[in-house]
Amino acid sequence: MKVLLLNGPNLNLLGSREPHIYGADTLADVEERFKAEAQSLGVEADAFQSNHEGALIDRIHAARKDGTTAIVINPGGLTHTSVALRDALSGVALPVVEVHISNVHRREEFRHHSYISGIAEGVIAGLGVHGYGAALRFLVGRYKG
Amino acid sequence: MKVLLLNGPNLNLLGSREPHIYGADTLADVEERFKAEAQSLGVEADAFQSNHEGALIDRIHAARKDGTTAIVINPGGLTHTSVALRDALSGVALPVVEVHISNVHRREEFRHHSYISGIAEGVIAGLGVHGYGAALRFLVGRYKG
Amino acid sequence: MKVLLLNGPNLNLLGSREPHIYGADTLADVEERFKAEAQSLGVEADAFQSNHEGALIDRIHAARKDGTTAIVINPGGLTHTSVALRDALSGVALPVVEVHISNVHRREEFRHHSYISGIAEGVIAGLGVHGYGAALRFLVGRYKG
Amino acid sequence: MKVLLLNGPNLNLLGSREPHIYGADTLADVEERFKAEAQSLGVEADAFQSNHEGALIDRIHAARKDGTTAIVINPGGLTHTSVALRDALSGVALPVVEVHISNVHRREEFRHHSYISGIAEGVIAGLGVHGYGAALRFLVGRYKG
Amino acid sequence: MKVLLLNGPNLNLLGSREPHIYGADTLADVEERFKAEAQSLGVEADAFQSNHEGALIDRIHAARKDGTTAIVINPGGLTHTSVALRDALSGVALPVVEVHISNVHRREEFRHHSYISGIAEGVIAGLGVHGYGAALRFLVGRYKG
Amino acid sequence: MKVLLLNGPNLNLLGSREPHIYGADTLADVEERFKAEAQSLGVEADAFQSNHEGALIDRIHAARKDGTTAIVINPGGLTHTSVALRDALSGVALPVVEVHISNVHRREEFRHHSYISGIAEGVIAGLGVHGYGAALRFLVGRYKG
Amino acid sequence: MKVLLLNGPNLNLLGSREPHIYGADTLADVEERFKAEAQSLGVEADAFQSNHEGALIDRIHAARKDGTTAIVINPGGLTHTSVALRDALSGVALPVVEVHISNVHRREEFRHHSYISGIAEGVIAGLGVHGYGAALRFLVGRYKG
Amino acid sequence: MKVLLLNGPNLNLLGSREPHIYGADTLADVEERFKAEAQSLGVEADAFQSNHEGALIDRIHAARKDGTTAIVINPGGLTHTSVALRDALSGVALPVVEVHISNVHRREEFRHHSYISGIAEGVIAGLGVHGYGAALRFLVGRYKG
Amino acid sequence: MKVLLLNGPNLNLLGSREPHIYGADTLADVEERFKAEAQSLGVEADAFQSNHEGALIDRIHAARKDGTTAIVINPGGLTHTSVALRDALSGVALPVVEVHISNVHRREEFRHHSYISGIAEGVIAGLGVHGYGAALRFLVGRYKG
Amino acid sequence: MKVLLLNGPNLNLLGSREPHIYGADTLADVEERFKAEAQSLGVEADAFQSNHEGALIDRIHAARKDGTTAIVINPGGLTHTSVALRDALSGVALPVVEVHISNVHRREEFRHHSYISGIAEGVIAGLGVHGYGAALRFLVGRYKG
Amino acid sequence: MKVLLLNGPNLNLLGSREPHIYGADTLADVEERFKAEAQSLGVEADAFQSNHEGALIDRIHAARKDGTTAIVINPGGLTHTSVALRDALSGVALPVVEVHISNVHRREEFRHHSYISGIAEGVIAGLGVHGYGAALRFLVGRYKG
Amino acid sequence: MKVLLLNGPNLNLLGSREPHIYGADTLADVEERFKAEAQSLGVEADAFQSNHEGALIDRIHAARKDGTTAIVINPGGLTHTSVALRDALSGVALPVVEVHISNVHRREEFRHHSYISGIAEGVIAGLGVHGYGAALRFLVGRYKG
Repeated sequence: MKVLLLNGPNLNLLGSREPHIYGADTLADVEERFKAEAQSLGVEADAFQSNHEGALIDRIHAARKDGTTAIVINPGGLTHTSVALRDALSGVALPVVEVHISNVHRREEFRHHSYISGIAEGVIAGLGVHGYGAALRFLVGRYKG
Repeated sequence: MKVLLLNGPNLNLLGSREPHIYGADTLADVEERFKAEAQSLGVEADAFQSNHEGALIDRIHAARKDGTTAIVINPGGLTHTSVALRDALSGVALPVVEVHISNVHRREEFRHHSYISGIAEGVIAGLGVHGYGAALRFLVGRYKG
Repeated sequence: MKVLLLNGPNLNLLGSREPHIYGADTLADVEERFKAEAQSLGVEADAFQSNHEGALIDRIHAARKDGTTAIVINPGGLTHTSVALRDALSGVALPVVEVHISNVHRREEFRHHSYISGIAEGVIAGLGVHGYGAALRFLVGRYKG
Repeated sequence: MKVLLLNGPNLNLLGSREPHIYGADTLADVEERFKAEAQSLGVEADAFQSNHEGALIDRIHAARKDGTTAIVINPGGLTHTSVALRDALSGVALPVVEVHISNVHRREEFRHHSYISGIAEGVIAGLGVHGYGAALRFLVGRYKG
Repeated sequence: MKVLLLNGPNLNLLGSREPHIYGADTLADVEERFKAEAQSLGVEADAFQSNHEGALIDRIHAARKDGTTAIVINPGGLTHTSVALRDALSGVALPVVEVHISNVHRREEFRHHSYISGIAEGVIAGLGVHGYGAALRFLVGRYKG
Repeated sequence: MKVLLLNGPNLNLLGSREPHIYGADTLADVEERFKAEAQSLGVEADAFQSNHEGALIDRIHAARKDGTTAIVINPGGLTHTSVALRDALSGVALPVVEVHISNVHRREEFRHHSYISGIAEGVIAGLGVHGYGAALRFLVGRYKG
Repeated sequence: MKVLLLNGPNLNLLGSREPHIYGADTLADVEERFKAEAQSLGVEADAFQSNHEGALIDRIHAARKDGTTAIVINPGGLTHTSVALRDALSGVALPVVEVHISNVHRREEFRHHSYISGIAEGVIAGLGVHGYGAALRFLVGRYKG
Repeated sequence: MKVLLLNGPNLNLLGSREPHIYGADTLADVEERFKAEAQSLGVEADAFQSNHEGALIDRIHAARKDGTTAIVINPGGLTHTSVALRDALSGVALPVVEVHISNVHRREEFRHHSYISGIAEGVIAGLGVHGYGAALRFLVGRYKG
Repeated sequence: MKVLLLNGPNLNLLGSREPHIYGADTLADVEERFKAEAQSLGVEADAFQSNHEGALIDRIHAARKDGTTAIVINPGGLTHTSVALRDALSGVALPVVEVHISNVHRREEFRHHSYISGIAEGVIAGLGVHGYGAALRFLVGRYKG
Repeated sequence: MKVLLLNGPNLNLLGSREPHIYGADTLADVEERFKAEAQSLGVEADAFQSNHEGALIDRIHAARKDGTTAIVINPGGLTHTSVALRDALSGVALPVVEVHISNVHRREEFRHHSYISGIAEGVIAGLGVHGYGAALRFLVGRYKG
Repeated sequence: MKVLLLNGPNLNLLGSREPHIYGADTLADVEERFKAEAQSLGVEADAFQSNHEGALIDRIHAARKDGTTAIVINPGGLTHTSVALRDALSGVALPVVEVHISNVHRREEFRHHSYISGIAEGVIAGLGVHGYGAALRFLVGRYKG
Repeated sequence: MKVLLLNGPNLNLLGSREPHIYGADTLADVEERFKAEAQSLGVEADAFQSNHEGALIDRIHAARKDGTTAIVINPGGLTHTSVALRDALSGVALPVVEVHISNVHRREEFRHHSYISGIAEGVIAGLGVHGYGAALRFLVGRYKG
């Protein structure tokens, strides 16, 4: 089993940007911890972040060929605006868990709708960076042979 | 630390009702496992289910006096219709994680809005009964001294 | 075959409340006539009314165990507001006919939407208390072996 | 007493079109049974079907002069789009029961609104062709001297 | 003349919950003062609070038989969601004044609509617990013989 | 100059249907008076009524060839629902005045929108059958050489 | 009988402003012709124009005392925004005909709704300044003894 | 302490206009009684009515300099349409109680929204002219030293 | 294989009506060319136009019996308003291609929605009369044995 | 070249009202600086403020005759509610720049729509009182010969 | 004449992704066939696909300089979300035909709106990969000298 | 002080694309003039344009490290669709002025909403390329020490 962690636009700012909302961990911290936890659960993990919608789609397509069996994705602002990202995820037909660090339902109205939730298996919001690990553990629990 | 697990209308049917959506675990299984996991994490846990909105509100009010420090709630159908439940939760001012067994965003339009999310700290949907434990671990990680 | 007649909030006022809309029959009259007609059609019938959403849900759950094979329900004001009642009915997976004494489509805008219709087999509105018997006869015609 | 049974566009296909929704009875079967039941209840009945809105309106106007005292109508697709049909029915000022063979509330969103319900005395949906007879019995019960 | 004071869900928390919005008076204080003022105005008063929609409806129905001649109601969160409560109030056909302690129009959008206002004689919002007395004085002024 | 007076569905009922809204003049009265007034103004007039949308469209198309130079139309219920009628009128490119006997803006919400107004030169509503003559006089005043 | 002609904001520009929409007649021309036609019909007429909502309301109130028996009003831009003007007109309880020089239904969306139409007896739009006379003749026809 | 009573458009008609809605008291009666009650409560009062939005705004601005410490306002039709009035009230930063004589929530849809409620401390509707005194007593109770 | 070409209201005006939108070909030209192209592709073709919704529905029903295997339809203005036409097409269960001569998405808002698209296999808009042939070639390519 | 500076309701409060939003400059300061800057750019300037919509319209009409060649306007609360003001500006057909001191898009929803923007050449918001000068410099740059 | 074939996000998956919706042809097959057909029609063709909105815009801009005279575009998920793509297409002012392989009108609601259709000459949906050739033939027929 | 000028998709076409809307200046002209004016005001300036959302976000992130103290941005079509761009700008927490060359409020409805305005300090639209300099002067005036 191999889990891909994807982070969308602006998540490279993690730890520096609006820490009262997103916490003090950097993206490097988050990715490292994700991989370590994966290893401890006996599965592989890879991580990728981009501010480019197209690059995220390219990476998702690549997942079809590199043995990825599940995806954890925090699509950032693209959550609310990208049908192309949704189509990429449904195109590769892997189980997806959508993660948001903040509780998007307590923020601006336009953050209440997600194009990703409709094709995701599960959605986690507001648990801070803890949400990435929770998603990983869920996927391993359900899909690891 | 003491965590209260609340389940709203129809969750007593767990295990028997629409198992392709909700899984085969009964509510008793879920509550037992929740308490066992709480104990293993060194915290107390209590569980309550009712089909009566009023009874859930009464139980939330009681939490103010029985030492409860956090709430995990699956409000069932009341999620989408009960301002009174929202007010009860914000009235006792405890951290709340909202859990849905199914991914509500893939179901009927009216299940896409929650009155609870606006006052919850986090929201988990679609992880099956796994979501209860994920909520518990998050709360213990953040609030246990 | 056993048919359960359920009446929701305020239907206990039948015969006394707004008779120009609801007619002069009391709820007791209606339930008695329903049972008599059931008997004459060779099926069993039971009846229950409550002003409590939770009590209606409890009664519906009980129907799973007491041999009920079909439900006739007039959900009263809960028609337009209760997802929990809808979930209870779809949870027990019995054929349901929704009955309204008045023609809800000629009344306030908010009475034009029903959460129950989406999971009911049939809907009858505006036939007065005659609608209960019509629902019964339909169910007996379709489901009695 | 004389009851007119009106069927709108496409109901001439009854029995051949989408039988999983509409059943296997033909329109001729339905009309025959309607008239037979009327006779057994001691009232006259007439039946008319057209795919032309204008022909239905003409037939309704004619009802003012041929002794018709009540109308049972399944307006088919015109239900959701024809103000002219509504005006014809309210113009002749006879009691109307609107019948739909399928439960329109479980189908496409645009079938949830009816221009006819606002001027009908009662509405029956989802009882299959049984609904026509139910409408007839209601009208006879209420209006036959 | 006899006035019934009804308080809905969460108003039992009065004095303890969000005092910057609701003030420091407890519900007991409010009910006592209401009865005292009624007495000084030469009318009877009774008070009831419940977190259960059904219990409130039962209490309203009982008012038809216990000589109640007017109702002051703060429906709490049910204001925005309960058609059944509205129907109960219009069912007993007594004059109703709707009271909200806070100015609901300055709070969340969903608090701007009330199912009760459409059948109430008057509405008071934002006067704090002072609003209960104002409602009482209005009713006594208008309806006391 | 030649003016065509068109009346849509149900206007043949004029004088008999809901006289408190539409007055006591019959359609024959209206058409006769229209032609007489046209003659007195030195222009030709023709009149046509149908309950069939298609027949009205056919008649409008014919106007392209019979020397008609302007149209006065009361589209009845088709006002609010017929794009095809609108297209017929804009297809023949003659000046059109839309007339409604009642003030449609004081009636049901769905009567407040007209597909015809967007291609008409003028709109008259609520003047009773007087509106037909007013439309005629306007057209003669503007277009008679 | 005495008819008051009211014109709202910007109608003093008549003849100079956007003549392709409003024509070349000045307001003085219009008012003069209105009074002349009134005289020829054997009724009195008065005219008033203001760019001030308040002045129009004051003038309407004055109409209650100066013998006015009907009002022809072109409310200009206030048509779409002034509840106060509507209330003034319904407050004096005189028959009102609303006139618009242009066909408001062919212009911006926000011009399609009128607060005045709901309390007017009739509405005329798009007949140019001819509409004022048409309104006058209608009122005289209906209300002159 | 000094309280300013403001009445907006058409409230000068009080007592003469639609008495079944607004009662038989004239505005002079209301203002006199308001001042008398103020005096009896040991505070000053002033009163002003205008049909001109601008004049009301000017009067509110003047209140900043004449010692006014609270405002009771019935904005009439401007309630639903005037952002400028709202801005004037929030500009002077005095406590405001909004009063409506009728229960606006039982009238036309467009009367259900108020631009004033969002900046008022309290709102009273449907208590008739009794509402003015209730507002006064509330303000005196809360703000009189 | 046999393809039926259907044209709805006003398409008989083709070539004469608004040629800048619809081109200069007459309907006869279009039908002739359609049949010629069908013949060259080795399939039969028939053509029908009507301004009457009912006649179009009758013709569609007839297609069930005359060996028609696919339909090309330009429903004209009925596109946006006729559920009955949609039901007729889905009732006969033949593959349908919907054709519009102009690009409906660049015209009025109400032309952006089609009741037919939801049951059509394909949709072509804006290719002028070329669209009919494109639809024919597609159907022949896919369905000709 | 002559530029007219118009300020609408409540802008006379500038400098005193909500200084955290609007800054500390008074309207007199703003108008003086505007005229000085105009002079330095070699153009004339005039300034006018009113809380009366009608007075603003009158002043705009006067601009047609006093040699004004461009208008800078901050319509205050009328921005969102006055079609009459819009019509006055389009009636005089002068280039208009709309200025708002605060960034209206960060404030209440109802401030996001402007009736003026649709007829203005440019719009400036959120630059504080600096916006007036920016508008002036733009107009002089574009229109001064 | 030179036609550019553009394919947006996820169309590189053609042949592998959801073949029941999109068919079994790969993008390479489609592009090859497009170029071959172009050659047979005597025109040039080029093809480009990208998952990056920016790269598509860059390619469209380049078309201004490389002799392209028409564009066939399947914008994939960007259809519903990209104003920038629309602006790029209208910026180069070439005739555009928009193609969708599936019938977007039978899929999710959010696929019913296209930002591209408003600036395209024609739109083809649901003809499978056949649509690309149909678009090409249309463009060649209309624009080839 | 250092100001970054950002231009989004299609602004590289400036001077060539739709000059009646955007003017004849090229982007190079605009950037050069912007830098020259900055220099004359004693501040640094940099400029960047991209058709790639991701590249714009990357450039904004870089601004956190290169001494940028304010941003002038014309987001082009991304204005209306990019939450990610908004998040990038709010992530770097620098003052932003949003500039549009055309008056977006006079164009298509979808251009009336901006995701950027909600986090910008000011917004300028319709001043042509003059708007860039106006934004620069505002920022220098407010933020230069």
